[in-house]
Amino acid sequence: MTRVGIVGIGHGVFGRRSDASVQELAFEAFREAMEDAGLERGQIDASVIGSVPEYHKQRSLAGVIQEYLGLTPKPTWLTEVACASGSAAMRTAWMAIKAGVHDTVLVMGCQKMTELSTPEILALMGRVGEVQWESGFGTTFPAYYAMFAKRHMHEFGTTRDQLLDVAIKNHYYGAMNPNALFRKEITPEKAKASEDVATPFQVYDCCANADGAACVILANEDKARAISQKPVWLDGMACATASMSVLRRPNLVGLPSAEEAGRQAYQMAGIGPEDIKVADVHDCFTIAEIMAYEDLGFCKKGEGGPFVADRQTYVGGKVAVNVDGGLKAKGHPIGATGLSMTYEIARQLRGEAGERQVPDADVGLTHNVGGIGQYCFVQVMKRD
Amino acid sequence: MTRVGIVGIGHGVFGRRSDASVQELAFEAFREAMEDAGLERGQIDASVIGSVPEYHKQRSLAGVIQEYLGLTPKPTWLTEVACASGSAAMRTAWMAIKAGVHDTVLVMGCQKMTELSTPEILALMGRVGEVQWESGFGTTFPAYYAMFAKRHMHEFGTTRDQLLDVAIKNHYYGAMNPNALFRKEITPEKAKASEDVATPFQVYDCCANADGAACVILANEDKARAISQKPVWLDGMACATASMSVLRRPNLVGLPSAEEAGRQAYQMAGIGPEDIKVADVHDCFTIAEIMAYEDLGFCKKGEGGPFVADRQTYVGGKVAVNVDGGLKAKGHPIGATGLSMTYEIARQLRGEAGERQVPDADVGLTHNVGGIGQYCFVQVMKRD
Repeated sequence: MTRVGIVGIGHGVFGRRSDASVQELAFEAFREAMEDAGLERGQIDASVIGSVPEYHKQRSLAGVIQEYLGLTPKPTWLTEVACASGSAAMRTAWMAIKAGVHDTVLVMGCQKMTELSTPEILALMGRVGEVQWESGFGTTFPAYYAMFAKRHMHEFGTTRDQLLDVAIKNHYYGAMNPNALFRKEITPEKAKASEDVATPFQVYDCCANADGAACVILANEDKARAISQKPVWLDGMACATASMSVLRRPNLVGLPSAEEAGRQAYQMAGIGPEDIKVADVHDCFTIAEIMAYEDLGFCKKGEGGPFVADRQTYVGGKVAVNVDGGLKAKGHPIGATGLSMTYEIARQLRGEAGERQVPDADVGLTHNVGGIGQYCFVQVMKRD
Repeated sequence: MTRVGIVGIGHGVFGRRSDASVQELAFEAFREAMEDAGLERGQIDASVIGSVPEYHKQRSLAGVIQEYLGLTPKPTWLTEVACASGSAAMRTAWMAIKAGVHDTVLVMGCQKMTELSTPEILALMGRVGEVQWESGFGTTFPAYYAMFAKRHMHEFGTTRDQLLDVAIKNHYYGAMNPNALFRKEITPEKAKASEDVATPFQVYDCCANADGAACVILANEDKARAISQKPVWLDGMACATASMSVLRRPNLVGLPSAEEAGRQAYQMAGIGPEDIKVADVHDCFTIAEIMAYEDLGFCKKGEGGPFVADRQTYVGGKVAVNVDGGLKAKGHPIGATGLSMTYEIARQLRGEAGERQVPDADVGLTHNVGGIGQYCFVQVMKRD
């Protein structure tokens, strides 16, 4: 089977983008990716859209985007697995190329989160939790992850300060990322003075909804080498699932889907967690990043708090994590997030991350979670 | 690349299924498909869900179905391309197997259309049309297809009776299908006495929303031969797109996406339209089936009306079309429809269609349209 390479990347500005429709957001990222690859529209064989359709007034989004980008009559399809939708799009595009069905595939993650009113958005998001026994009784995303945080603190002594260390790191790097929603550093004092959300979370423990798009172009090995001077290879592409209902999980201090997807992705790529130099992980809440360190084997279970407090996930630490700002500082346009992660790791492996560059970054990883760990997609990426 | 075979099929009863949740509908079809294949859950490597998520109260449907079927922690993803969602699920599952990523993949099409109120459903469906310039001004699905019908009548002399011949045929066969919503024959007199919908359509020109699920299990060639005595091969799997806005189409007497997808599927399978013995096509409105005959090359452009009037699409005619009742008589649970088509053609190629059996059915086809032809997916299926 052919290796699959990334030959073009593009990323728009995340934020409250009342200046642009979802098609226009997609076009921003598309144009940059096409220019980066040096391709013309006719060279794109298919597109895959990662998005959660119900947040948009226009439905059947794949067709809308396909036409707006000028890619009809080529094939397209949309994948939806909640917040991991963009990573599912990546994985089906990768399969299409490995299968020899298409040679060059454009993957677009795009999402408007601000077309609907806040109550409408909250009602929709709640329904990603298990409706019958959990979200039906009022469990929201912050409440789910707050349970994880409380349990992690109870079992392992993880502290309030360690949780906030995640936010402080991600804001520190977000301030250097021109595509981030929040481009400002925060202090522990400021974070602790912010409003309560769900104990132990305050505002700065939580990522924010945003509008945005990011785009990646994939090609088979021969084409990738012909198109790009520095292709980035997708050598491990795994997905695993866990119960919808959090009540049926073995514990509340990690995500079994992340552990399983990580294990499979490492095996597929022939590497281990110690080989990863840079990673983008799903920090929807501060505890989620700490659990990701542990689930992915960057540190042992229970040691995620000290791991971030010791700055092991800063540039120069053991493994740089979310040094683009993460969901926390970039914002979280659901369907776009998986592509934004892929974009960042590709930039790092290409050595183009500027002041945020991780030295000698040759192997990287993305970890994208859907729902409350119902899905996890892990990608291992390598440079030549 | 490996050939991909169908090794198990299952189909629930379509209709107003207030007795079952979407998970339970999925389980009905799953159980039948697993029994048909003689497989245990542990032998399923991944699942793909075809569904339009926004019609359900529970969101993130892939995870819900995966857990309910007992398939966690295996991978899953959901595909959405409006009414063609089930066929996109089929195509990504087929790619996963061709790529060697998974050996055995379950494909589930499932949809509840009656959880939301009729006004809510109509509002959502309207938004599949182009919102800014078309559906925003009141264009609905019946209105779009009525324009196609009027234009077809104007250009080719297609008659009101020929349109109704499609409905009469599909109800004739639907009466023999225990899974169909409408199991009764209709007469021209009855059809002409029914309420007006959008000129020239009356009630019997239109398919009906329904709840339902259908399931297919795919495997690579080696496994397919080991699992099944009579595997059915997916030898042509094509997708093409056309403009979202119908105003930007070259004409209103056919679907360019269907023509293109048909051409590609025939080429991939090494056959032509004259080889197809049995087909399931997307007859959301009577004119849609007539255009499908023409777009797929079963007859020349403009001759679809006489083609059905001459009974060329009955069992015993040139090519049997929708002899399971089609969307018209079976009902149209959006995400399930592509799987229902695949189920029917597999049954025909296996020689198990009973009183509706097409003699010597060795090559069959499915044609599934998303939106108003924004997408078309064509599958060519063969028996050994």
